[in-house]
Amino acid sequence: MTEKTTSDLVLEQLKQGLALPGDLYTSPTLFAEEVSAIFGRQWLYAGHVSEIPHAGDYLTVTSGDESCIVARDADGEIHGLLNVCRHRGARLVDCGTGSTRRFVCPYHQWAYSHDGSLAGAPRMPDSFDKSRWPLKKVHTSVWQGLVFVNFSSEEEVESLPELMADAAELMNPFGVEDARIAHTEVYEVDANWKLVWENAQECYHCNANHPEFIRTFDVREMAQPTAGEAPLWYSEDRRSQSARFPLKPGAVSLTMSGRPASAKPMGEFADGREPYTAAAHLKPGFAFVFSPDYGITFVDTPVSPDRTHVKVQWLVHRDAVEGVDYAVDNLIRVWDQTNRQDWELCRSVQEGVKSHGFEPGPLSLDETSVAGFYYAYARMMSAAGL
Amino acid sequence: MTEKTTSDLVLEQLKQGLALPGDLYTSPTLFAEEVSAIFGRQWLYAGHVSEIPHAGDYLTVTSGDESCIVARDADGEIHGLLNVCRHRGARLVDCGTGSTRRFVCPYHQWAYSHDGSLAGAPRMPDSFDKSRWPLKKVHTSVWQGLVFVNFSSEEEVESLPELMADAAELMNPFGVEDARIAHTEVYEVDANWKLVWENAQECYHCNANHPEFIRTFDVREMAQPTAGEAPLWYSEDRRSQSARFPLKPGAVSLTMSGRPASAKPMGEFADGREPYTAAAHLKPGFAFVFSPDYGITFVDTPVSPDRTHVKVQWLVHRDAVEGVDYAVDNLIRVWDQTNRQDWELCRSVQEGVKSHGFEPGPLSLDETSVAGFYYAYARMMSAAGL
Amino acid sequence: MTEKTTSDLVLEQLKQGLALPGDLYTSPTLFAEEVSAIFGRQWLYAGHVSEIPHAGDYLTVTSGDESCIVARDADGEIHGLLNVCRHRGARLVDCGTGSTRRFVCPYHQWAYSHDGSLAGAPRMPDSFDKSRWPLKKVHTSVWQGLVFVNFSSEEEVESLPELMADAAELMNPFGVEDARIAHTEVYEVDANWKLVWENAQECYHCNANHPEFIRTFDVREMAQPTAGEAPLWYSEDRRSQSARFPLKPGAVSLTMSGRPASAKPMGEFADGREPYTAAAHLKPGFAFVFSPDYGITFVDTPVSPDRTHVKVQWLVHRDAVEGVDYAVDNLIRVWDQTNRQDWELCRSVQEGVKSHGFEPGPLSLDETSVAGFYYAYARMMSAAGL
Repeated sequence: MTEKTTSDLVLEQLKQGLALPGDLYTSPTLFAEEVSAIFGRQWLYAGHVSEIPHAGDYLTVTSGDESCIVARDADGEIHGLLNVCRHRGARLVDCGTGSTRRFVCPYHQWAYSHDGSLAGAPRMPDSFDKSRWPLKKVHTSVWQGLVFVNFSSEEEVESLPELMADAAELMNPFGVEDARIAHTEVYEVDANWKLVWENAQECYHCNANHPEFIRTFDVREMAQPTAGEAPLWYSEDRRSQSARFPLKPGAVSLTMSGRPASAKPMGEFADGREPYTAAAHLKPGFAFVFSPDYGITFVDTPVSPDRTHVKVQWLVHRDAVEGVDYAVDNLIRVWDQTNRQDWELCRSVQEGVKSHGFEPGPLSLDETSVAGFYYAYARMMSAAGL
Repeated sequence: MTEKTTSDLVLEQLKQGLALPGDLYTSPTLFAEEVSAIFGRQWLYAGHVSEIPHAGDYLTVTSGDESCIVARDADGEIHGLLNVCRHRGARLVDCGTGSTRRFVCPYHQWAYSHDGSLAGAPRMPDSFDKSRWPLKKVHTSVWQGLVFVNFSSEEEVESLPELMADAAELMNPFGVEDARIAHTEVYEVDANWKLVWENAQECYHCNANHPEFIRTFDVREMAQPTAGEAPLWYSEDRRSQSARFPLKPGAVSLTMSGRPASAKPMGEFADGREPYTAAAHLKPGFAFVFSPDYGITFVDTPVSPDRTHVKVQWLVHRDAVEGVDYAVDNLIRVWDQTNRQDWELCRSVQEGVKSHGFEPGPLSLDETSVAGFYYAYARMMSAAGL
Repeated sequence: MTEKTTSDLVLEQLKQGLALPGDLYTSPTLFAEEVSAIFGRQWLYAGHVSEIPHAGDYLTVTSGDESCIVARDADGEIHGLLNVCRHRGARLVDCGTGSTRRFVCPYHQWAYSHDGSLAGAPRMPDSFDKSRWPLKKVHTSVWQGLVFVNFSSEEEVESLPELMADAAELMNPFGVEDARIAHTEVYEVDANWKLVWENAQECYHCNANHPEFIRTFDVREMAQPTAGEAPLWYSEDRRSQSARFPLKPGAVSLTMSGRPASAKPMGEFADGREPYTAAAHLKPGFAFVFSPDYGITFVDTPVSPDRTHVKVQWLVHRDAVEGVDYAVDNLIRVWDQTNRQDWELCRSVQEGVKSHGFEPGPLSLDETSVAGFYYAYARMMSAAGL
C-alpha cells in the first residue's frame, strides 16, 4: 500500500468539486516541499528588460533562500548568476538593481565578470584554478520583455516561450518590451500563497469587495460571456492561462474613470488598434494585466505557510513622463485598493482553514479557474513525485 | 512495556509533593497535545449574557485556532456556531461583539441565519442543497449568566451545571446574570498557561508581591482558617473549585480601601445580605471572584508553550453608572496591579524551568491548591489517553 | 555502518582546504546539539572581577536557557550559582550586577546565602530539610581577573589556567586584573555563531572593509610576518589561541590616531615597558585584545541558528577617569565601527550559505586560523560524540 500523495488528494477534491483541506495551507512540511518542488523548478518572473538596458546593468530576484543576479554583459547578453560567492558564500550584491564593471564580493574581494567567470581572487595558493570557480548559473529566459529565471539544477529546463505560447498573440499588441516600471508596491499577505492564487482566479467575490475595480470591470460578462468566442486560453496543464478582461461599455482602461491613466498608449494601440484589456499568468508566481495605456505585474513569493510576499509593479510606455502623461496616484489606485481588499480576504480564509472543524466546501459556477489552479498545482507537485 | 504518559508522570510528582518537571512547560509537542486534548474538549468561558441581550446579537470567542460565534436568535435562544464559512472557510465575523440580521461571509456572500442554517449562496449549481451546508455547531451552555462553549466534536458533552454544582450556592447570591461588563483588559503573559494557573492557586506569594491585594485580603485566614467550616469546595477531579475569599476585618470588597468600588450592590446584597467575597473556577481556563459590589472574570488562553493570553473583565450591577456609581480606575486598581505583578512572577518561573539544571522542588503547606491543579491536569490529560 | 558525525565531516572539509557546508549554519537540530555539547560544557566568560569587588556583590551571566549568578561571599570567595530557585524555579535575580545580603526568591521568599545554601523557606512541612535544597553550583574560575563559568554537570571540569597557559606570559604585562569596564555594547548579529568566529579569525577581509581598523593594524605583517618569531601560540586542540597584534610603525594603540585612548597605561606599561598589542581567545565564546592603554573583551552567545548575541566591553586601568583620562567616543570608535562592519559581512554570508546552490569554497592563504577554528569545533563536537 502506498500513501496518498498530495497531488492525488487534490485531484480527488477536484472530482468532487470541492476546495482543498486546511492542512494544505498550514503544514510546514508541505510548505517546504512546495518551495523546493515548485518554486525551485518552475520559471519565476525576475523583472523587466527596461531595468537592465545597458551593458553592466543587473537586477536581482529572490525566492525563498535563493537569490539570483540577472546581468547584462558587454555584448548585451543576459546571464542568470546565483548571488553566492564561490569562496565563502557571501551575497555579491544586495537586493535591488544596479550597474557594475565586475561583481566584487564585499567579504574578500573575489571578482566575477557578468558571465559569472571568476576574474580575480587574492591570496589563493598557486594551485588554485580560477576557471573551476565561476558563479553558478541560473536559467534565464526573456518573453515579450519580461525576464524569467528558473532555479532548477537540471541542465535543461522547459522552454518559456512554449509555455507562454497561448498568451503570445493576445499580449503581443501591448508591446510590453517597450514599457518601463512606473511604480512598485510590495505587500506582505498573511495567507498561504495558494490562497492568494485562488483569490486571483475568480471574480465571484468582486461585486461585494472591490468597488473601485468593478467601476470598469464587467464581472457579469466575465462569468457568463455573451461573445461567441471563448474568453479563456490555457495550457493543457493549466500552468499558463490568458484571457480578455471584459470592461464595461465605454471603459478603455482599468482605472477609476475608465479613461486611460497614461496619455501614451502602448504598442499597437498607439497606431489606433481597437482597445482591449487582457490578462495572463504563469504559475506558480506570475500574473499580469494590461490595458492599452498601462499594465501591472504580480509576483507571489511564499515566505511561510501563512505568509506570502507579493510584489506588484505598474508599467507604462517607456516614453511616458510622470506628471505629464500620468499621475502615479491615479495610475495605481484601482489595483492598489483591490489588492489590499484581497489580502484581507485571504487573511480571513487563512484564519478559517486552520480550524479543526473546517471542511472544504463546494466550488461555485464562478470558480472554475480556482479548479484550474488546483489542477495546475496537482500537476506541478506530481512532477516531483509529491 | 508502555511508555509513561504525562498524566502518570504528574501523579508521581504529586505523590512526592513535588512540582512538575521543566519539560512540561516548554515542550511544543506537549503544548499541541494540551490544546487539542484539554482546550479542545473542555468548557471554555465565552462571555456574559449582557453582551448579547437582544435578538440578532452575537459575541465571539477564540481558543487557539478555533473561533466561535455565540448568537442569540429571534426566539432568544443562544447558538454556538463555528466562525468558518462552509464555502471556502473565511471568518464570518471578526472578533468582538455585534448585531446582525444574518451572518454574511465577506468573501462570497454566503448568508447564514442565527441558528447556523444556510440562507443564501449565490451562483451555486442547481444540484446544490443548502440544507447540507449549515455552519458547524459548537456546544454552548449558560450558567448564572456566564456563557460557555465547548469545541468538542462529540455529539454529547458533560453538563456544565453539574460541573459547577458545588459552586452554585456560594455564587448564587451575587446575581451574576444581572451584571454587565464595566472594563476589559487583555494581558499577554510570557509563561506557560499552567504556570499562570499555579500562580492563581496559592497565596504563598501574596505578602511579598501584592501590596494592593493584601490591603483587604486575609492571607493568614486563607492559609489557616479559624472558622469551623471548610473554606473550599471542589469537584472530585478538582476541575471545578470554589471558596470563600476571606477579607480582613472591616473590609467588604477587594478594593484599595475595603469599601465598595460600586455604589450598586449586586444580587441579594442589595437586600442587605451579609457581605462576603467568593471565588470559583473551572479548569482549564476560567476563574472569577465576586465581592458584593463587583466581580472579575479571568480567561486563560494558551498561545504557545511560553505565552498565555489572559482576558480579564470587571463586572458591576447592570444598573451601575460609570462616573456616578463607580470610577473605572478605582474599580480595577487592585486586580490590575495584582495581575501585572503575577505575570512578572510567572515569566520569571518560565525562564527558570527552561534550565537543564532545574529540578522540581517541594510544595509548601500553602500550595495544596497547586497540587489540586496538577491533579485536575492529570485527569484531563488522562481522559485523552495522554 | 555508522553515520558520519559532524566532527568527521568537518575534518574531511579541512583536509581538502574547504569551508563548511551550508547546513552547519542553518540546521536547528545541529544548533541545539552545539548549545548543549559545546556551550553547555566549555568555559564561558562571565565578567571582570572589578564588577564584584566587595562581599555581597554579584554579577549574572546567561547562555542559552542557562543563567548563573557569580557571587562574592563574606570571605571574598567567588561562587557560581544556578539562577533558579530550588522551590518552583523562579529566577532569583534579573540579569545585571548588584549587591545583596541574601538571594531572596521574589516568588515565595526562599532565601539563599552567597555560597548557595538555603537559609530560609517559609511554611514548609516539618520534615523539610533545608540542607538538601541549596542552589545548584556552577563551576567558576578566575584567570588574570577574568571570571569564567562552566555549566557542565560533571563533578570535575578542565583547569581554566591550564587551557590559557599559552596566553599567560603574553597577556600578563597588561595587568588585566587591575582594569575596570569603561563601556559595554551588545550587538545582535544575524548570523550563526560559527560565522562570527570565522570572521574574527582572519584579516583577509580587513583592507576592503575596515578603514578605521587598518589605520593602525598592520594587515600585511599579520599575514606574512617578517619577525623571526612565530606570531601565534595555540593549544594543540586550537581552543585557546594568542598572538601579538602587529601595529603599523608609530602606533602604540588600536585607536584612530594610533596614540593611546586612555592616559593611564595598564600593568607593566605604566613602568615603561615597550608597548605592544596582543590578542587571545578561548573558544567557543571568548576573545580579547589589549593595547597598553585599553582592552576589549568579546563574548559570543548563540541565540538561534541564524542569530548570535555579541557582548563587547572596553576596559581601562581602574584609576582612569572618564572625561579626564579618556573619552568614551574615542575609546570605542575603532572597534565599534569594525564590529558593525563585521556583523554586516556575517549576515551576508548567512544569507548565502542558505542557498541550495551553495558549495563550500577553498580557503585562502590568509585563512589558516579559520581552519584552526574548524579544527577546534570538530574536537569540541567529537568530545560529545557528535
